[in-house]
Amino acid sequence: MTSTARRTLVVAASLLTIGTASVRAQATPLASWNDGPTKRAILAFVRATTDRSSPQYVAADDRIATFDNDGTLWVEHPLYTQAVFALDRVGALAAQHPEWKSTEPFKSVLARDAAAIAKFDEADWEKIVAATHTGMTVGQFNDIVATWFASATDKRFKRHYTELVYQPMLELLQYLRENGYKTYIVTGGGQDFVRAFAPRVYGVPTEQVVGTADRTRLTYGPDGKVELIKAPELLYVDDKTGKPEGIHLVIGRRPRAAFGNSDGDKQMLQWTQAGDGQRLMLLVRHDDAQREYAYAADTKVGTFSDTLMSVATKNGWLVVSMKNDWRRVFPFDP
Amino acid sequence: MTSTARRTLVVAASLLTIGTASVRAQATPLASWNDGPTKRAILAFVRATTDRSSPQYVAADDRIATFDNDGTLWVEHPLYTQAVFALDRVGALAAQHPEWKSTEPFKSVLARDAAAIAKFDEADWEKIVAATHTGMTVGQFNDIVATWFASATDKRFKRHYTELVYQPMLELLQYLRENGYKTYIVTGGGQDFVRAFAPRVYGVPTEQVVGTADRTRLTYGPDGKVELIKAPELLYVDDKTGKPEGIHLVIGRRPRAAFGNSDGDKQMLQWTQAGDGQRLMLLVRHDDAQREYAYAADTKVGTFSDTLMSVATKNGWLVVSMKNDWRRVFPFDP
Repeated sequence: MTSTARRTLVVAASLLTIGTASVRAQATPLASWNDGPTKRAILAFVRATTDRSSPQYVAADDRIATFDNDGTLWVEHPLYTQAVFALDRVGALAAQHPEWKSTEPFKSVLARDAAAIAKFDEADWEKIVAATHTGMTVGQFNDIVATWFASATDKRFKRHYTELVYQPMLELLQYLRENGYKTYIVTGGGQDFVRAFAPRVYGVPTEQVVGTADRTRLTYGPDGKVELIKAPELLYVDDKTGKPEGIHLVIGRRPRAAFGNSDGDKQMLQWTQAGDGQRLMLLVRHDDAQREYAYAADTKVGTFSDTLMSVATKNGWLVVSMKNDWRRVFPFDP
Repeated sequence: MTSTARRTLVVAASLLTIGTASVRAQATPLASWNDGPTKRAILAFVRATTDRSSPQYVAADDRIATFDNDGTLWVEHPLYTQAVFALDRVGALAAQHPEWKSTEPFKSVLARDAAAIAKFDEADWEKIVAATHTGMTVGQFNDIVATWFASATDKRFKRHYTELVYQPMLELLQYLRENGYKTYIVTGGGQDFVRAFAPRVYGVPTEQVVGTADRTRLTYGPDGKVELIKAPELLYVDDKTGKPEGIHLVIGRRPRAAFGNSDGDKQMLQWTQAGDGQRLMLLVRHDDAQREYAYAADTKVGTFSDTLMSVATKNGWLVVSMKNDWRRVFPFDP
C-alpha cells in the first residue's frame, strides 16, 4: 500500500471470530493457477534458475524473492487492514482517553463519521498511528495485533482478515521456497504489524518481513529489566523508492524475483530487473469484482495506474489477471 | 565498536596482499577452545536448547544467535579496520580532490599527522566517512571494500585483515549453525562494510548482518536504469541501545544467545537475557598481549569497563579469557 494512501483513506471500521488460511502442501505446483502464459512463465523461470545445467542457473544463496503484501498476498479493499486495525484500536482505547470525545481526529473516529475521516490529512493519521501503534513494548504490540486478528472480520466476506489471502500466491510462496528461494515480504504497511501474522499465515519469519518502520527505544524498567518501546518516530517508509532502499537495508542483495500489484511496487520491480541474468517481475491486477474486487487507476487504495501498465508492458513484466489466471482466489473457495 | 570511539581514534594507516580465514569443518566441536568451564557452558547451552527431551528445548525457528564483530570475531586494535579503510580511501581519492591538500580534516590525513588526527572531532570523522562511504552505488561500494581487503594488511601480523579473525569464534559460529542456530552479526561498524566480507569470511549472508547504516537513495541513470546510491545521512547507529533496536528492526525477534566484548554490547546481552527460558550471554576479554592484545577499561577502542565486568558477574555472563580459554587465536596459528 502507499503510505500517502494509507493516511488518506475513507474508512468505516467493522468488527465481527478465529481462523487461519493454511499453506497447504502441493502435489502439483501452482494448482490454483489456470494453465496459461503467466503460469508457464513462472514455471519456466524457476526451472531456468534452479536447473544446474541451465545457463540461467542461480546459486541457492542468491535466490531471493520479494512480495508486496496488500493487494498482492491479501485483500486491501475497501481499505487496508492495518487502517481498520488502527480505527478499531481508537475505539478500544477510548475509555482510557476521555479527551478523545472532544478532540480530533479521535472524535470523528469514535463517531464513525466517514465523511470527516475521509478528510483527514497526514497529521491526523499520524496522530492515530501514534496513539495506536506506539508507546507499548514490541511484545505488547505483537499481542495486541494478534488478539485483534483473532476477533476482527471483514464485512463482505465475513471472514478473518488472515483468511483473505490469495491461495495462488500462497502456492507461489511455497513453490519458490521448495525451489530454494528465500521469500520476503516487502510492504508499505507497518513492519511490526505484518510480522504479527506473517509467520503463521505466509510461513515467512519475522526477519523476512521488510516494512515501514518506526524507531524503538530501549528503556530500563523499575526492576532493571530492559524493554524495547515502540516510539512515535518514523524511521523509514517502505514504499515506492523506499522498497529498494528497504530491501538493501534489510536484505543487502537484489531480488531475483519481485511481486506486486500497485504503483508503490514499481521501483521494487525495476530494481529487480536492473540486475544481471534472468529475473521475474509480476504484477497482480484486480479485475474480478465477483470473487474479489475490480480496480486499477480509479482507486487510492492500491492504485494500478496507466503509467504502471505501460511500464509493465514495455519491460515485459507479467501481469496476472485474477479473473483469468486464478482458478481459485481464497483458500476457502470451493 | 562504539560509534563515538569510531570517530575519535588515534590513527596511523597502514598499507602493505589476498587471503581469507577459512571456516574449517570440525570433527570435534570447538576444538580450539581449551577444556574448561566456558567451553563446557557453551556445549551445555546448545545441548539443553536443541535436545528435544530437554525442558529448555527451543524450536529451530527460534534459534537466533547474535555476534558483535570488532573485538569479538576479529581484531580491533590498534584501531578499527573500518577506520583504517576510511583513511586509506582518503589517500586513494586525494588525486580527485586537490582541495584536500589544504582542507581539514583531509589535509592531516594526507600528511599522516597522527597528532592532528587524534584531535578530530565527530564533525571531522563525519566528513571522512561521507567522503569515503557515500556518493557511489551500493554495488560500487561493495567492490571498493572488497578490493581494499584484497591488498591491505595489518602492520603487526603482516596479514590481511580478513585473516585476523578468531578461530575459536569461527568454530562457535559453525557449531551453532550445525545445531540449527541462525547466526547474525550485530556490529557498531558499517553494515555495508561488514557485508562486503561477512559471507566469505564468516559464512554469514548479507541479510544476517546488522550494523550502523546510512540511507540509500534510488535514482534513475541517464539510461533509465535504477541505481541505489549511498547517501550521507545516518539512518541508525547500531551500538549500545542501538543494538537491541537494530536487532528488532532487522530480525524482529530476541536472540537466544549473544556474544560481545565491550561496553557497546551490554544492552544486546541484557536484551537477550531478559527473554524467557535459557539464554547464553558471553563476553570476550582481551588479556593476551602475546598472541593478540591486552586491554580492557584502558582503551577507547573496544572498552571493557569495570562496570561491564560487574554487570557480567552479577548476571552470570560467561567471560572468555583469550589467554586461558583459547588454544589457538587465529586460523594461521600453529
